[in-house]
Amino acid sequence: MPTPCFARKILPALLCALGAAAGVADAAPTISRLTPPSNPLSADAVTLARFLPGQRFDLQATVRPDAGQTISSVEFKVDGVSVGTISGNGVVGNKSLLPATAITATVPNAVAASLRAYSTQSVGVHTLTAVATQSDGSVVSRDGNFEVVGIVANNGRPAKNIIIMLGDGMGAAHRTAARIMAKGYAQGKAQGRLAMDTFPYTGMVMTASLDSIVTDSAPGMANYVTGNKAQNNQEGVFPDDTTDAFDNPRVEYLSEYLHRNRNTALGIVTTADVFDATPAANAVHTSNRGNGTGIVDQFLDDRKLTGLTVLMGGGRKWFLPNASNSTNPQATNGSQRKTSTDYVLPDDLVAGWGASKGKLDAGRDLIADFQSAGYTYAPDKSALDAAGVPDKLLGLFTFSNMNVALDKINARRGVSTVVNDYGFPDQPMLDEMTDKALKVLNKNNTNGFVLMVEGASIDKQAHLMDSDRWILETIEFDRAIQKAKDFATANPDTLVIVTADHECAGAAIIGAYTGTGASKSNVATYEAAKFPKYTINADGYPQTTDIAGKMLIGYGANADRYETWQAYPQPAQDSQQPFVGAAPLNTYPVNAAARTGNGFLISGQVSGEQAVHTATDIPLSAYGRGASLFTGVFDNTDVFFKLGQIAIGGAK
Amino acid sequence: MPTPCFARKILPALLCALGAAAGVADAAPTISRLTPPSNPLSADAVTLARFLPGQRFDLQATVRPDAGQTISSVEFKVDGVSVGTISGNGVVGNKSLLPATAITATVPNAVAASLRAYSTQSVGVHTLTAVATQSDGSVVSRDGNFEVVGIVANNGRPAKNIIIMLGDGMGAAHRTAARIMAKGYAQGKAQGRLAMDTFPYTGMVMTASLDSIVTDSAPGMANYVTGNKAQNNQEGVFPDDTTDAFDNPRVEYLSEYLHRNRNTALGIVTTADVFDATPAANAVHTSNRGNGTGIVDQFLDDRKLTGLTVLMGGGRKWFLPNASNSTNPQATNGSQRKTSTDYVLPDDLVAGWGASKGKLDAGRDLIADFQSAGYTYAPDKSALDAAGVPDKLLGLFTFSNMNVALDKINARRGVSTVVNDYGFPDQPMLDEMTDKALKVLNKNNTNGFVLMVEGASIDKQAHLMDSDRWILETIEFDRAIQKAKDFATANPDTLVIVTADHECAGAAIIGAYTGTGASKSNVATYEAAKFPKYTINADGYPQTTDIAGKMLIGYGANADRYETWQAYPQPAQDSQQPFVGAAPLNTYPVNAAARTGNGFLISGQVSGEQAVHTATDIPLSAYGRGASLFTGVFDNTDVFFKLGQIAIGGAK
Repeated sequence: MPTPCFARKILPALLCALGAAAGVADAAPTISRLTPPSNPLSADAVTLARFLPGQRFDLQATVRPDAGQTISSVEFKVDGVSVGTISGNGVVGNKSLLPATAITATVPNAVAASLRAYSTQSVGVHTLTAVATQSDGSVVSRDGNFEVVGIVANNGRPAKNIIIMLGDGMGAAHRTAARIMAKGYAQGKAQGRLAMDTFPYTGMVMTASLDSIVTDSAPGMANYVTGNKAQNNQEGVFPDDTTDAFDNPRVEYLSEYLHRNRNTALGIVTTADVFDATPAANAVHTSNRGNGTGIVDQFLDDRKLTGLTVLMGGGRKWFLPNASNSTNPQATNGSQRKTSTDYVLPDDLVAGWGASKGKLDAGRDLIADFQSAGYTYAPDKSALDAAGVPDKLLGLFTFSNMNVALDKINARRGVSTVVNDYGFPDQPMLDEMTDKALKVLNKNNTNGFVLMVEGASIDKQAHLMDSDRWILETIEFDRAIQKAKDFATANPDTLVIVTADHECAGAAIIGAYTGTGASKSNVATYEAAKFPKYTINADGYPQTTDIAGKMLIGYGANADRYETWQAYPQPAQDSQQPFVGAAPLNTYPVNAAARTGNGFLISGQVSGEQAVHTATDIPLSAYGRGASLFTGVFDNTDVFFKLGQIAIGGAK
Repeated sequence: MPTPCFARKILPALLCALGAAAGVADAAPTISRLTPPSNPLSADAVTLARFLPGQRFDLQATVRPDAGQTISSVEFKVDGVSVGTISGNGVVGNKSLLPATAITATVPNAVAASLRAYSTQSVGVHTLTAVATQSDGSVVSRDGNFEVVGIVANNGRPAKNIIIMLGDGMGAAHRTAARIMAKGYAQGKAQGRLAMDTFPYTGMVMTASLDSIVTDSAPGMANYVTGNKAQNNQEGVFPDDTTDAFDNPRVEYLSEYLHRNRNTALGIVTTADVFDATPAANAVHTSNRGNGTGIVDQFLDDRKLTGLTVLMGGGRKWFLPNASNSTNPQATNGSQRKTSTDYVLPDDLVAGWGASKGKLDAGRDLIADFQSAGYTYAPDKSALDAAGVPDKLLGLFTFSNMNVALDKINARRGVSTVVNDYGFPDQPMLDEMTDKALKVLNKNNTNGFVLMVEGASIDKQAHLMDSDRWILETIEFDRAIQKAKDFATANPDTLVIVTADHECAGAAIIGAYTGTGASKSNVATYEAAKFPKYTINADGYPQTTDIAGKMLIGYGANADRYETWQAYPQPAQDSQQPFVGAAPLNTYPVNAAARTGNGFLISGQVSGEQAVHTATDIPLSAYGRGASLFTGVFDNTDVFFKLGQIAIGGAK
């Protein structure tokens, strides 16, 4: 038996070095991962994993035994005191010790030991230790740490309701551009303020994810509502060493924490497909944001964990039955359901969290199941209006992402049929959805709610470098913010924060174009840019974006583009693709005229068709109960602890 | 005599329209400009010009008489009450009525009527009226408005000292990039914070100038310290219709207002040439930021208005005598002084403001004059150290802009001779200059001070798209911020704000490079970017910026560049050009190796060699007395009124 290389304490590092030098390191049993992840830099580095008192999270260790040996037990200790020993293979209650074959491990021969839904009320930094015993009696251990962040009790009146307005990809430039277009400037001064500008407190948020300075939308949202860093493409979980996207170690969401402690309701409203990263990262636990079938199933099946009461957006394609689980999308109804993107949870996870086990059921009629569970279903704006104020609400207004504000508004004005071309002529605006969500959530509201409203296509259109469309998306989003602000004014036990998950595209307001139409090719900078003057219609949106002296946006994280900045013809993309009978439309915008006569193609800094996210800090604005906590520069995970303080301990 | 077209009140608009239709409008006497400028949009639009109680500003009207007539008098009224009538041509005290020939008017036949250094303590919105009487007795009038913003008296303890840390061009991306490089990230969390990150309050600032959404540095600074919008390239003045760059209607600076009310001292510290827009826009009044000779003269000659006590930076070339006023730069000493950039003020301005009249004196030895006035002069860091803590201090460490942090640090480490090549091997760092400035200003400090410290080359190097250099500039600036914070901690009646005048270049943190050196051509986005790890030396700066996986910056407002993002070879530029004997160096950086092997040239969104400023809101951070006022979204002019409140009325 080789000498095991203990990471700390048990044997000095010298012995480990000797073992490595002797070429036996590979043969030693090792704990290659301990979850929650700890900061590896140094003893005095910042603790990584942080939780609120009582917040639940999974403990897990990946252990590799010596050749010919097995792991007979793994014990987890917190501050040296055992919190659970898992002995013998298999699942017992909320614990499991499973070999590579059972967990489809990505680390050779690995064993995963899990203790699900652990929590502690003990505030402070704690040492977490995993001790693994091999079949020959040798022992290996590894230390990590985590912190429980205290809540100051009776620190003021708690916020009963929390509204998170999430402008996807909305950095400082996106906010500024929306103000310039919607409110106008004269002699250097904004002639009006966006709703978000009127919030009394602002902070700057650091947006990195667990594995990069540049996050995607999954950690971008999850980090706000778990208090912990997720890895890119992951939501509500820590990374693990298995291929199953639904068995990862979980961390409890704000929605779940408050529902369990205070019986709050949850509302999720988005202009994206509801399976998209931002909406899902409030209620669904998965390491693969692309698993639409399982994601939408979990919304419904774990509603008793989250208190899900309102779910609105696009994404109907995931809710329709795909009886054959073959063609994708189904020729008969456009369903995108597939068993390959569905889940069945391991039993220890089900036992620990009280989660629904799930089922590989591509043929499920999920809309019917939502209705059976008491949700009123609205497929379009007319139905949404007709629904009144139901107890629970499901709104699925398109097959995939909803059409963008510019196209919805143009349809209402009768000047464009893009929404008809997409097959969904009767879509609500985000402020209408927000207003309805607030009415439903506030009906018989005794325990409060968490509502997340996403302006999703600020990001999606910034990726496409379609400046006019993302600026209008930001204006649409701001009108929804006004609804949230009005609610908080009328219901002062409400906190509203406006933020973003990350900046998208490195958007920059260069100045203005000189000339219009075909001659719109000259760049006006500094004083030549003057003050672009858009005429705003009674509906709150510009009469046209094609004005003389229109605002010119550049992109620091730019992709390939055409000379005149029209959107790059977009290839077929599942997440952007609507379903209209048997003829899906593959490009957005669909009007071909927008893609001709646009000059030469310019290669971007980033290859491909889409500009990328950047690492730049983004602004956060806060209004209402506890808003004063949101100023200064802070991490996205810090937001969670501020929300917890305000919702549980109160704020002055 | 045609019927005069009164802008408001006296005759109905119909008559004016009739006059215009009859083709006589051009012949009517008109008041084509009334200063201070009013917001023209509508009666309920925001008032443009705003002042603190008692803050001084000039009233001016540009009047065009009928053909063959002259203007015999102009009366200014505030709320209908006369505040001064100017009758007869010429200058009387602080009033003047001067024809086009005398004022070199840019409006044909115009007369300028001025009433200098007006002020009122009356809080609220006021109507300003100019009434002009023609030689034939006809009368024309025009209304405008302005507001006096009240100060809440005894609202808490006033801030005795105000420190403005101005990172030129420093937007959210510049701050984030400096944090990533200087502090490092691990598992999604910054392993340390910039000094500016630790400031408890943050706001977002709208940065537009009087004539554009995109400001340059002159209004960018002036708007903070006058409370009013300046036009691009102008500082401490309102625009007028004369060609003289020093006769414009003035508005009192914060430094002047507090010196007059509280006898405060003024310190100005910059890494730029001291004549540059940002330093000048704290003490010098001109409509042309390029007039170096007059600008540096006014620093000294109007020190009794501003309380100038410390002036440090580059720009020695403006202080050396140019006896012949011919060659530029002077072959004997590199002087850039020219009478064409100097001034003589009009007598009404001298009388009203108590300003020095000035003189066209290219041959002036301004360093000697500073010394005669009691300033200790330090030409380099050694002299600065040796100076101890003098009563007054002038430091001019280079001929033009100082060398940047990367080059100064490399010189101290002995790994590069760029600063030697420039002829200034012994330049201080900005934190050293800041520390010395604070010691001088705090010596026998009974009345407090205003100190402006500029990190100037964050902007200048962002213009050049030289990412490594502007990131190091931001780190250098942050080290100066730490000095200011330390001072405020030790002297709690001090307010420190950290802000920028505007964003520069649309900087975007795309991700990282893969590979190093010649292979540094692949772009790593999202999780491939990981966490760039720079090694920070004991001096606080990275050992090298050329690491594997180095941070990749893009520019949304980009100019032409080379494939590998090395700086574009820069043409001879006065403001960047040092003087070394008879052989000025024309490019920066000077090491030719940096400009070879850089791949192909990529055309920018903006033509030319320099990326441009953008209109994007920038973050502001505040620490110390009154800091809590600086959160939310506000205009750059709002900052002035917050500073006034805090310095005069106090803040809790």
